[in-house]
Amino acid sequence: MAFQRVAIVGLGLIGASLGLALHRLPRPPLVVGYDRAGPARSEAARRKAVDRLAPAAAEAAEGADVVVLATPVRTIPGLLAEIAPRLAEGCLVTDTGSTKAELVAAAAATAPGVAFVGGHPMAGKLTSGADDADAALFQGAVYCLTPTADTPPAAVARAVELVEALGARPYFLEPAEHDGLVAAVSHLPYLLASTLMAAVSAEASWREMATLAAGGFATMTRLATGEPEMYADICLTNRDAILHQLDRFAAELASLREAVAAGDEALRERFAAAREHHEAWLRERSGRPSDMPPLEELKGPNLFIPQSWQDALRGRRPERPQ
Amino acid sequence: MAFQRVAIVGLGLIGASLGLALHRLPRPPLVVGYDRAGPARSEAARRKAVDRLAPAAAEAAEGADVVVLATPVRTIPGLLAEIAPRLAEGCLVTDTGSTKAELVAAAAATAPGVAFVGGHPMAGKLTSGADDADAALFQGAVYCLTPTADTPPAAVARAVELVEALGARPYFLEPAEHDGLVAAVSHLPYLLASTLMAAVSAEASWREMATLAAGGFATMTRLATGEPEMYADICLTNRDAILHQLDRFAAELASLREAVAAGDEALRERFAAAREHHEAWLRERSGRPSDMPPLEELKGPNLFIPQSWQDALRGRRPERPQ
Repeated sequence: MAFQRVAIVGLGLIGASLGLALHRLPRPPLVVGYDRAGPARSEAARRKAVDRLAPAAAEAAEGADVVVLATPVRTIPGLLAEIAPRLAEGCLVTDTGSTKAELVAAAAATAPGVAFVGGHPMAGKLTSGADDADAALFQGAVYCLTPTADTPPAAVARAVELVEALGARPYFLEPAEHDGLVAAVSHLPYLLASTLMAAVSAEASWREMATLAAGGFATMTRLATGEPEMYADICLTNRDAILHQLDRFAAELASLREAVAAGDEALRERFAAAREHHEAWLRERSGRPSDMPPLEELKGPNLFIPQSWQDALRGRRPERPQ
Repeated sequence: MAFQRVAIVGLGLIGASLGLALHRLPRPPLVVGYDRAGPARSEAARRKAVDRLAPAAAEAAEGADVVVLATPVRTIPGLLAEIAPRLAEGCLVTDTGSTKAELVAAAAATAPGVAFVGGHPMAGKLTSGADDADAALFQGAVYCLTPTADTPPAAVARAVELVEALGARPYFLEPAEHDGLVAAVSHLPYLLASTLMAAVSAEASWREMATLAAGGFATMTRLATGEPEMYADICLTNRDAILHQLDRFAAELASLREAVAAGDEALRERFAAAREHHEAWLRERSGRPSDMPPLEELKGPNLFIPQSWQDALRGRRPERPQ
């Protein structure tokens, strides 16, 4: 099936990029958008990320095949409750939030009848507004999906269809597993950038430091431009996994401190090992197949994929943007 | 005066870029180069960063007006001792190393008769070889100079002439002051990138983490590609300042950990404050004048500039690359 009508609630970078990507499909759906902020609404309309603006989330969702909630994580359960009574039969609701376990549990509790599949595209930019929206943002990106044993197979199939329509690669994970992984590779990096900026700018000699700060400092603080509200939500909904990563990092840093204090010549090997890990990661990344690998490869180790989902996904013929 | 002959010892990114920049002067000097590694020599010659290759550092230095030592910090005192007997009267020797206090003291002890001025261009790339050399690398960059009270005024004037010929902005600092500042804005950022790579790649679920790792992780580990030997040298020659920065960062991270553990809603303000500091820094940076400000603004707060240097610098008419 193709999508007839897609609702996007939250018209920031992700929501607006999603709208642009959908418009590049051979048979684009009608895209109806809503954002609580007027400037985001106007910008999304100006960029033609949406065909129509709705006066509220519930009105946007009405009659849609798919509703995408692209707002900060902690607003999603409330939005789900708000739109639930207006959803068409069989409508898929998905989100693009950065943490999944708390949200998936809240969704099941708040709107038990809704066919909800948690989603998280591993794509983004340093900017957060619709003015930087990009139809190609999801092209080739890993797109996490976190259905549970209770998710209807048809909703899983539709979520996969949406992800592939965006040119992204679906990757199935158990919600808590997702949160543990992104704590390490997404939340921790942001927290380090923000902490570096906070620590150094509080120094008495920050003015002189700022004069000398060059490319390395710029690189390592760039992520500190991220949306404060989004990252506060992330910390508040993924506390344990983030604490685990902060502790692991702090332990590694303490071990480095010991080596520096001891004047250890083995620092060179330590740095060389980290560099090799980085190079191996880059090689692996660039070697990723752009075609979709078989379903079995598209999931983390902890998720069991029920036969009913496999049946629903078999023979899918995704449309993709050109 | 213009330079007749410049020797560059160490033909990596910095040394080779220096050679290329000198060749763009209206009246380019003869550039003689040496590197202990054959491939670096060939690459620098192929890129025409040097006019001539010498069979050893001492031969390269012979008859030069200026010798630039662009090798890892800990090799510099040995090189100074090696070239000292062959230097022409009044020849300026400078380096491009990332730490200055230990080196400046070692230089005075090893080669007391040599007119040495410590230097450190705040410019670089993520790659380290001559194949990425760039004549414009120093354009507009802050270039630290760390003369001491014993440095002959003529050597200071010549160092400034070199820096301005490269299109960079001389910035005078006391050696220990330099080391304290760069520990925060250059050494700490590298150490965080390397530590992040080490911590995360040691996780049992690194394979799955690597699949999800996207732009943020790439940004925050990019510096881990730095030369292990160079950074080991930095840690071994700037221990106390680096330990101070590691401790400050660890304390800031511990305070963040507490806020995350407490589920503190004020995380948002914390992140917003860091973002504001980052934005203020970027604004300040882009507002830097490209013309040289007066000498008084070109120094950190702790350095006293003797009248004899000021006299030597007055009326200088630098040549610059186009």
